[in-house]
Amino acid sequence: MKLLRYGLPGQERPGILDKDGNVRDLSNVISDIHGATLSDESLKKIAAIDSSSLPLVADPVRFGPCVNNVGKFICIGLNYADHAAESGLAVPDEPVVFMKATSAITGPNDNVIKPRNSTKLDWEVELGIIIGKHCSYVELDDAMDHIAGYCVINDVSERNFQLERGGQWDKGKGCDSFGPIGPYVVTKDEVPDPLNLNLWLKVNGKTFQNGSTKHMVFGPAFLVHYLSQFMSLQPGDVISTGTPPGVGLGQKPPLYLEVGDVMELGIEGMGTQKQTVVKA
Amino acid sequence: MKLLRYGLPGQERPGILDKDGNVRDLSNVISDIHGATLSDESLKKIAAIDSSSLPLVADPVRFGPCVNNVGKFICIGLNYADHAAESGLAVPDEPVVFMKATSAITGPNDNVIKPRNSTKLDWEVELGIIIGKHCSYVELDDAMDHIAGYCVINDVSERNFQLERGGQWDKGKGCDSFGPIGPYVVTKDEVPDPLNLNLWLKVNGKTFQNGSTKHMVFGPAFLVHYLSQFMSLQPGDVISTGTPPGVGLGQKPPLYLEVGDVMELGIEGMGTQKQTVVKA
Repeated sequence: MKLLRYGLPGQERPGILDKDGNVRDLSNVISDIHGATLSDESLKKIAAIDSSSLPLVADPVRFGPCVNNVGKFICIGLNYADHAAESGLAVPDEPVVFMKATSAITGPNDNVIKPRNSTKLDWEVELGIIIGKHCSYVELDDAMDHIAGYCVINDVSERNFQLERGGQWDKGKGCDSFGPIGPYVVTKDEVPDPLNLNLWLKVNGKTFQNGSTKHMVFGPAFLVHYLSQFMSLQPGDVISTGTPPGVGLGQKPPLYLEVGDVMELGIEGMGTQKQTVVKA
Repeated sequence: MKLLRYGLPGQERPGILDKDGNVRDLSNVISDIHGATLSDESLKKIAAIDSSSLPLVADPVRFGPCVNNVGKFICIGLNYADHAAESGLAVPDEPVVFMKATSAITGPNDNVIKPRNSTKLDWEVELGIIIGKHCSYVELDDAMDHIAGYCVINDVSERNFQLERGGQWDKGKGCDSFGPIGPYVVTKDEVPDPLNLNLWLKVNGKTFQNGSTKHMVFGPAFLVHYLSQFMSLQPGDVISTGTPPGVGLGQKPPLYLEVGDVMELGIEGMGTQKQTVVKA
């Protein structure tokens, strides 16, 4: 299933994509797409409905963030060997973990705001994991049971804030609008092999990232297992799994986003995003 | 005012400390202590009530986290010159910013869980800022308008996870139970000078930290102003402002917490916390 949230910011309603690619309203079935409605039980309930019987949404107006009330927005750094190389950094022995502010979360096609004093605004297409079931110290073999689905994420980054302003990355990762997620939560039954997905990103029509999750260093099951050794994961938490090569920082010379630039990105079978960079 | 949440985990009710130090129930006035009820208007409404007219809570059972539904739990590193020195690090030119997982938040006297594989569990008494009003790019002179109050925080840390497992600190800061906050949100009218407060922490009865916020490098107003240049702040967000000298990492030789150890900590006029370290 492809679950989504549609409507104006703050007024989103839950929806689902039907077989013909139309948005259908889920408001009579679930209150929202969030932790409580991402459980196995809830997803089974939704799957049992003939989506063509649900109200058709002729004009969804806008796609909101595909999950609401995200508790934690956890990111994995340097999780593609080629991206580590272009960043001038070694492939880590174990996942590098940092966090994006949940206030950075926006819809997949909302504007990306270039912060005041930003000089190195950059892009990162990433596969997102949506947690469906609480876990703590979960075994690797059981980790997949805790994933509800996946989504497209643009881990928008300000490299000056991230790398040259104190050493901890969070400062350059959590600015408002730096976390477009969606358009869909694609439930895991539709993603039999999350380690074999193409993902790409274009700026102003030119392809900069064109990779595959097959080059991930640490895959989704391992990441859930690993993170759960450090903190419990709750339904609705989002994990962004790192980006393939081709970010602005890796260009020679480096190339950063300016106001008016347009990013388009997507992951095979998971929909696309499109953002315009605007002034703060 | 000293606002609080009392009751069993997940069942807390809002309360207030009356002039005699008794807990009074606020359930008929506000739904909870969280972003929406920390606004100037809401605080004025509560202040207008004679707290002795509210239902007396003879046995509060337990103090919960003093704020619920925290959106962001932002921390400032190395914000006391002496603590930077004991950590072997320079005083930063500008605030070092990292994040604690909101799932780490617990009540002020709840157990602190020593994670599996933890070898360097440490303590940090800190002054917490509670945001009362949204801000983005707020001027320094206006920053105080966005603070609802203050609280005691123990920024519990696992130094091995924080410093020796990939370089980004969040991994050793956000473990479950690593964020005791409270017992009270002390509204800012009761804290005329947040830069002149004694704060202390004992382990097993021995004083390890005994400092004053007068030695902070960056004070509360500056921190709110500064952070708002990077991300918007929402009501109910918590900022932990860094710790004075005397953490376990700074002892010669370093000294870390073991199961059964008891931490007691407090800030002048803001109440105390007491936690026992337990096994994961």
